[in-house]
Amino acid sequence: MGAIQNTQIVLASRPVAEIDPDTAFRLQKVGLSDELGADEILVKVLYISLDPAMRGWMRDIRSYVPPVQINEVMRSADVAQVIKSNNKNFKVGDLLTGTLGWQSYAKFKPTKDTVKINVFPGVSPSTHLGMLGLTGLTAYFGLHEVGEIATRASANHTVVVSGAAGATGLVAAQICKHVYGCRVIGIAGSQDKCEYLTKEIGLDAALNYKSKTFFKDLCAVTPKYIDTFFDNTGGDILDACLRRIAFKGRIIVCGAISTYNDANPKGPAYYSALITQRARMEGFIVFDYAKKYGQAIQDMSQWIKEGKLQSKETITEGIENAPTALVRLFKGDNTGKMLIRVAEADPVAKL
Amino acid sequence: MGAIQNTQIVLASRPVAEIDPDTAFRLQKVGLSDELGADEILVKVLYISLDPAMRGWMRDIRSYVPPVQINEVMRSADVAQVIKSNNKNFKVGDLLTGTLGWQSYAKFKPTKDTVKINVFPGVSPSTHLGMLGLTGLTAYFGLHEVGEIATRASANHTVVVSGAAGATGLVAAQICKHVYGCRVIGIAGSQDKCEYLTKEIGLDAALNYKSKTFFKDLCAVTPKYIDTFFDNTGGDILDACLRRIAFKGRIIVCGAISTYNDANPKGPAYYSALITQRARMEGFIVFDYAKKYGQAIQDMSQWIKEGKLQSKETITEGIENAPTALVRLFKGDNTGKMLIRVAEADPVAKL
Repeated sequence: MGAIQNTQIVLASRPVAEIDPDTAFRLQKVGLSDELGADEILVKVLYISLDPAMRGWMRDIRSYVPPVQINEVMRSADVAQVIKSNNKNFKVGDLLTGTLGWQSYAKFKPTKDTVKINVFPGVSPSTHLGMLGLTGLTAYFGLHEVGEIATRASANHTVVVSGAAGATGLVAAQICKHVYGCRVIGIAGSQDKCEYLTKEIGLDAALNYKSKTFFKDLCAVTPKYIDTFFDNTGGDILDACLRRIAFKGRIIVCGAISTYNDANPKGPAYYSALITQRARMEGFIVFDYAKKYGQAIQDMSQWIKEGKLQSKETITEGIENAPTALVRLFKGDNTGKMLIRVAEADPVAKL
Repeated sequence: MGAIQNTQIVLASRPVAEIDPDTAFRLQKVGLSDELGADEILVKVLYISLDPAMRGWMRDIRSYVPPVQINEVMRSADVAQVIKSNNKNFKVGDLLTGTLGWQSYAKFKPTKDTVKINVFPGVSPSTHLGMLGLTGLTAYFGLHEVGEIATRASANHTVVVSGAAGATGLVAAQICKHVYGCRVIGIAGSQDKCEYLTKEIGLDAALNYKSKTFFKDLCAVTPKYIDTFFDNTGGDILDACLRRIAFKGRIIVCGAISTYNDANPKGPAYYSALITQRARMEGFIVFDYAKKYGQAIQDMSQWIKEGKLQSKETITEGIENAPTALVRLFKGDNTGKMLIRVAEADPVAKL
């Protein structure tokens, strides 16, 4: 029995545009008693998920979750390991995911949000923040619920995914290509990422949006236009894909990372293509499908086992590096899921 | 037997931004023989429909119809009267609608596009370009097919209609208010139009988008946000409504008149509200529902008879005034359907 030193990173100020990691966040070390109340557990955080959506949570606006408050621990999904338990459903050593934030320890009464990880042979616990976590579920539900991909897919169905080398995009692209057999074109921000997408992941084509010939290249690989556009970036890429949207095409608005740091983002100038092509643009939030998570994880696990989906992570060591890693996420420094490794899992965890 | 002098207005050049009526169009008088080939009819144009969509037809871009060619008669829907017939389905005196363009006469073989008007007691033939024509059908199918209003409507369902005093908007607003009993807010461009919308049409509220307090006013009348937004204007009004869109709200993208004269229109900066509010934005073209026109016209006729829908027209006399009237349409000078009266119907028409 005693006190643990808990390293936390809190929101210090709300950035207007780009995040300055030194002024937006503040690291603090606080004592945390390991005495547990009824049903409480004490966990050690192993991995922190970094997501584009975090930029929105830092804003004081009407959204799908309340904003993170100033001086509040920055919100994130984490993988953690139970190191002390007063709860019959969680024992020491158990791994779980939950919204625990940017801190090295957490003490709490488990909620619906606290989900025990069923360890999967050959799959790292961190995968439960990526492909088998909200990241993968986001791709899954965006494609199935908004894009109705299961009924619309065919070998002639052209899918374009922006941010295709990013966490969610990479899952979405693989599902469309290797589960549904569509023609899949990935958009990414470097030649290396494009090669990864075609050579390692097997997409039909990959385009570097930073290329001067990007729009021409997009036209060349979408001779029959774009039936489904899974958009993670917004901005000029969204406009380019609106210009190429097919009759009755669908735009699944998953994210708009290109705009999140922009105090005055511009909208998609070519949105009137929605009229001329009778197209649909629809947003979604993964949380709405919580009742279907079980089936989704079962499907995704099966697809991983069958070798249809492969996981990719970019891992930064140390919680103190979370602010700079978040900034790098917006620069596109990651391939696949962006994670902070806070600590290693213990084979048998105890205090 | 002889030649008729046919007054035509052709597209002379493609405007880049605002339409200059003197350079964009050219009036010409051409001889038209009244000799009819097999199945042909000769008609006198009575009314020409002016529509925001015409601005798009003047552009040389990929769209839902081919662009009007330079030196081609400007495309429009018209009401006309048969003055000579070689077709057993059309007799002299019959009224019809068709895509006959900006001209005073037309000679052609009737197609599927040539629809005989069933004269409706107390309803002007011009109504078949407005409420009982493509204008009304556009409102009808946008609301029913894209907005799924029949299943979504309730007394608590807040509908906002932009361009609510315009041709399509006025029909859409009336259907939502008087057929489905929704809370309906109209947006228009003058105090007079707003008074017309509340006092004559019976909407719950009407807002002048030119007012400095427009966004504040919109917030005040949408305390539970906007469930359905029927958008005819785009631009800042679309952005304002995106900011007020409700959870699972729908944006029916009918038109974007505010952008049609803009060489570099800006897009809706707040489109990311589609994500946070899980909202849908979808465009449509009335032509896609041609197979359902019959049922729609039957419904609309019934609603007119029941006094639920009232027709409103702004009529300009003389085909030579079509170019300036089109410019005025983009300035919002009309209330309800904008028409050119070319000629009066003859009680018994003959050459």
